[in-house]
Amino acid sequence: MKRPAIAAVLLLAATAVCAQAQPKPEDQIKQRKSAFAVIGHNFGSLGAMAQDKKPYNKEEAVRNAELVSVLADYPKNFFGPGTDKGDTKAKPELWKNRSDFDDKMEKMIGEARKLPQAARGDLASLKKAVADTGAACKACHDDYRAK
Amino acid sequence: MKRPAIAAVLLLAATAVCAQAQPKPEDQIKQRKSAFAVIGHNFGSLGAMAQDKKPYNKEEAVRNAELVSVLADYPKNFFGPGTDKGDTKAKPELWKNRSDFDDKMEKMIGEARKLPQAARGDLASLKKAVADTGAACKACHDDYRAK
Repeated sequence: MKRPAIAAVLLLAATAVCAQAQPKPEDQIKQRKSAFAVIGHNFGSLGAMAQDKKPYNKEEAVRNAELVSVLADYPKNFFGPGTDKGDTKAKPELWKNRSDFDDKMEKMIGEARKLPQAARGDLASLKKAVADTGAACKACHDDYRAK
Repeated sequence: MKRPAIAAVLLLAATAVCAQAQPKPEDQIKQRKSAFAVIGHNFGSLGAMAQDKKPYNKEEAVRNAELVSVLADYPKNFFGPGTDKGDTKAKPELWKNRSDFDDKMEKMIGEARKLPQAARGDLASLKKAVADTGAACKACHDDYRAK
């Protein structure tokens, strides 16, 4: 009875891996770009407030910050094999220096997650968190995103 | 002193309105489509689990549900004037029947917000919430999204 039971477990595991396999490269690119588009729009709003280019509105800032924070760790799941080609600005260097890219992503995620609490504080706390997150975004863009 | 003070207040208000004005139509379309792309991917995962087409994974379901829930009320802000033209599947009927569209959006948002709690429960509670949200999505797609 032992062999069939093991076989069944392996089959189940294989099915699980298949069902949870990554989406097609073009779909992965779409997912990461879509998330970055929403992140960019909302972080842009926070940046404008932080730079006094847009009136500070705490309620809006909190909403912007929550969206950036919840989406921050989403794109990293969609840089799988084959996603270096196609409709993307990601540079080939990203896959050559993957661990550096991953480190920079984690740094950005960590900073982005501080945004909601900072936005619930005052404009000074928001400015600090926006500057830190912006620097973390830029570090990755400088190295791994084409102009 | 009264007139200049009022003028200053009006100027401030006008600046605020300008700074908070809606993005350009093409940027609005990009924002709503990006949010729908992320919602679609994550709701698709929930739907596959609910229909037993993908192994049920509670942790993944909770993450999917949170993303759908937090993004659900985002697209409605980006159907402003001029966004009926361009790279969009939104039908002209949407703007002709705006209050019906708005009602359907609010219904979807309400159902989507129940997803995280349902996902933290068991598969049966997830299936119920996915069915309710899916029906709310479909109601709007049937009337206002081109094939």
